[in-house]
Parts: sequence; structure tokens; C-alpha cells
Amino acid sequence: MNEQQKKMTLIVFSNDMDKAMSAFILATGAASSGMRVTMYFTFWGLSLLRKKDYSRQGKSLIERMFGWLLPEGPDETRLSKMNFLGAGTKMMKSIMRKKKIFQLNDLMDMAVSLDIKIVACTTSMEMMGIKREELIDNIEVGGVATYLGNARESAVNLFI
Amino acid sequence: MNEQQKKMTLIVFSNDMDKAMSAFILATGAASSGMRVTMYFTFWGLSLLRKKDYSRQGKSLIERMFGWLLPEGPDETRLSKMNFLGAGTKMMKSIMRKKKIFQLNDLMDMAVSLDIKIVACTTSMEMMGIKREELIDNIEVGGVATYLGNARESAVNLFI
Amino acid sequence: MNEQQKKMTLIVFSNDMDKAMSAFILATGAASSGMRVTMYFTFWGLSLLRKKDYSRQGKSLIERMFGWLLPEGPDETRLSKMNFLGAGTKMMKSIMRKKKIFQLNDLMDMAVSLDIKIVACTTSMEMMGIKREELIDNIEVGGVATYLGNARESAVNLFI
Repeated sequence: MNEQQKKMTLIVFSNDMDKAMSAFILATGAASSGMRVTMYFTFWGLSLLRKKDYSRQGKSLIERMFGWLLPEGPDETRLSKMNFLGAGTKMMKSIMRKKKIFQLNDLMDMAVSLDIKIVACTTSMEMMGIKREELIDNIEVGGVATYLGNARESAVNLFI
Repeated sequence: MNEQQKKMTLIVFSNDMDKAMSAFILATGAASSGMRVTMYFTFWGLSLLRKKDYSRQGKSLIERMFGWLLPEGPDETRLSKMNFLGAGTKMMKSIMRKKKIFQLNDLMDMAVSLDIKIVACTTSMEMMGIKREELIDNIEVGGVATYLGNARESAVNLFI
Repeated sequence: MNEQQKKMTLIVFSNDMDKAMSAFILATGAASSGMRVTMYFTFWGLSLLRKKDYSRQGKSLIERMFGWLLPEGPDETRLSKMNFLGAGTKMMKSIMRKKKIFQLNDLMDMAVSLDIKIVACTTSMEMMGIKREELIDNIEVGGVATYLGNARESAVNLFI
């Protein structure tokens, strides 16, 4: 394996539960097999990194609306299909518990303990009025140059 | 061309007709020009590989619901946009017939005859309670390690 | 940096405002840092390249319907989530104006001036009955072989 083949860089654009799960299954699988993985969270995907119940003080009305409408971390995500007002998502979660398949929050904890580099997109943060302290710990912030620097050196690049 | 440039690996996550068509047009185009192509079907994409009218015997209620709600192979897929309760999808199919553009099932047959490697994701199979015998022939099953093994050696990696 | 690391090739499949913005932010960011970028517009993404108010003369009824339903260029695109019948998209645009973040049409102008190669997918043009003269200037047309030729030589390949 050459240096490039040891790296994977994922853009996580979506905040759908199913797509986020795919991203973290790929990322933790790769990191477990010794690859160095970077996950770059942009646009809707950024909300996966939000802490729960962060105060909305000092935000504009529109920023508070975004805050209210977007999921606060993995527990509030929904399936992209067959959500059925939440029933489909609940059903899928109960199946995963029964079959002992990792849930999204388990996978995110694993990602941190496997030293996966998690980067929050600065442009998206600005656009949605999300500050660094609203996001979980153990992450970095960075722009498109940060992403490209990682992606250029990776054999596997995906947009999810 | 080096070895890596001769390989393409696609993750097919979606079961939308339009995205599946894109995946198979890319895959068959690449295989026709001599590239070795692997398509890895995960999550909703898995339903593209389902046989028609497979018996639901021995399945739990929830698994039967999934079986009933998800498309059984390419003929039951729909457009991701402008579906209009099926009318948009029908219209698009009739246009393709008229203009002699390959339909999704034609493209899937081509993929098999071009020796494209088709892999069904084992985690997704477990999650949705889909057994090997419910899926079409000429495919393999594999997990994230199978995917990564192929992707690492491919110049072109996409998540569709 | 080797030759491959200097190239990026993006498939733009979606015509959602948010995904199109991501594509152009990545593309212009890469081109600004000296990378050679190709953007390949296929399926719904093709409508991003449409001129405004192009005459529908000489088109079939179905082709005129597509023409009417699909956005004419970047100004008519919408968010993939939280569109709320257009209100969410308008809100997002007003935020971007206030915070001086580039809008989609600004990014597209930048892409042209940065010599990003923009390619319209011929199969998609045929499928939707879109002729070359309906699309903006400074672009090329090409099929899957054109895409693969570029992608094979690129370190960063994404499907958006």
C-alpha cells in the first residue's frame, strides 16, 4: 500500500440518519483497518456535530430558526426515505437495537476514539450562524483549502 | 494507464431510478472501455438487486413491511424528483423508449454481461432482513472491508 | 504534488441550490489554488446550465413540460431541505447577501473566469430534449467517455 492508499476523506453534506450512518460505517471501518480518515462536515451535515440544548442567546431570529429546525446531533436525525413522520426512523432504530447493529451515536463515539479527524466547515458555520462552542469537542474547523489538502492525498474520496 | 486508473468502484446507496441509471451508465461505460468496475450496493440501493415476488415466509412483521415498501428490482424504482405519484417516472420511461435510450433493467443486464462485480452489503442485508436468496444471481455479498479493498485500488470512487 | 493531485473532476447530478453551491465552492476553491477542475453536469444538474427564457418552439409537449418544470439556471434553484414552498430558500439567500457569502450565480461566473471546464452530458440533453443553444456559453458537451477520461486522471472525484 502506498501513502495515498492509506488515506480516506469524506465530505458529509447530508444530515439524514441513513447517509450519516453510511459515512460513519465507512470511516470507522477504514480507521479500524489502519487508514487515516478525515471527515469534513458541511451544510446540513454540520448539524450532526451540534451539542444538545445549546443556548440561543445572542443569535438573530433567523439563526434561532435554523437552530430550532435542524437536528441537534445524531439522536434527532431522520431517514431520508420512509420516515413516515418519524415512525419509520423509530422502527429502523429498534431493528438496529434488536440486531445489535451500532447506532449513529455509537459510531460517532467510535470515530473519536479511533482518532478520525473531524472537521467542521467554516463557511457553513457562518452561513447558519453556528459558533464553535455549539459543536462537540474533539473536532477542528476548516475551509475548503483544508478539505482539498486532505482529499488530494487520499485514494478514497466520497461526497455523502 | 497505471493499474489504479483501470479500476472504478461505485457505492450505490440510492434506489432512485435516476441515480441508479447514472450509476449503471457510468459503470457500463467504464467496463466497455476496459476498466474493471465494482458496484457496492448498500442501504436503499440494495433493493435494486431484489428478485420479484419473493415469498415473505419466515420473516418478522417489520421485515415484511420493508419488503413490501421497498422496490423489488429496477422496474419498481422511481425518479427522485418530479415523480408526481408515478406519472413523471412513467413519462421519463416512455421518452427513453422512444429515443432508444437504455432503461435501467437493460443497463443492469449489460452490467452482468460486462463482468462488472456486483456486491451486496451484508450490514444492509441484516438491517433490512434481506436474505441472499432474495437477491438476483451473479452477485457477491461483502462488508465494508470488501468495499475498502476495492476502493483503495481504484482511481475513480463515487458515492451515488 | 504529482499530476493526478493537480486535478479534480466533479459530477453535478443534482440541481438543488445547496448541492450546487457545494460543488461550485469546491470547484472554485480548487481552481484558485492551481488545480485543473472539470465539472460534468448530468441529469437534473444539467438545468443549472440553462439560459433564461429560451423559446420552446419546435419541442414536443413532454419536452416543453420538462422545460417548464426544471429550473432555468441558478436563480431558480431551491434548497433540498427546508425549502418551505420557497420561503426557506429566500431566507438562505438573504442571509448569504447579508453576510457577503457568494451566491450560486456569482460562483458560476467565478468558475468560468477561473477556466474551470464545464461539460454538459449528451445523454441527459437527449433525454430531456435540451439543445446546445439552450445552454450557457463557454461550455462543452460530452458523454460518459469524456467524463471517464478526466476522472481517471484526477485525485479528487466526487458525485454531487
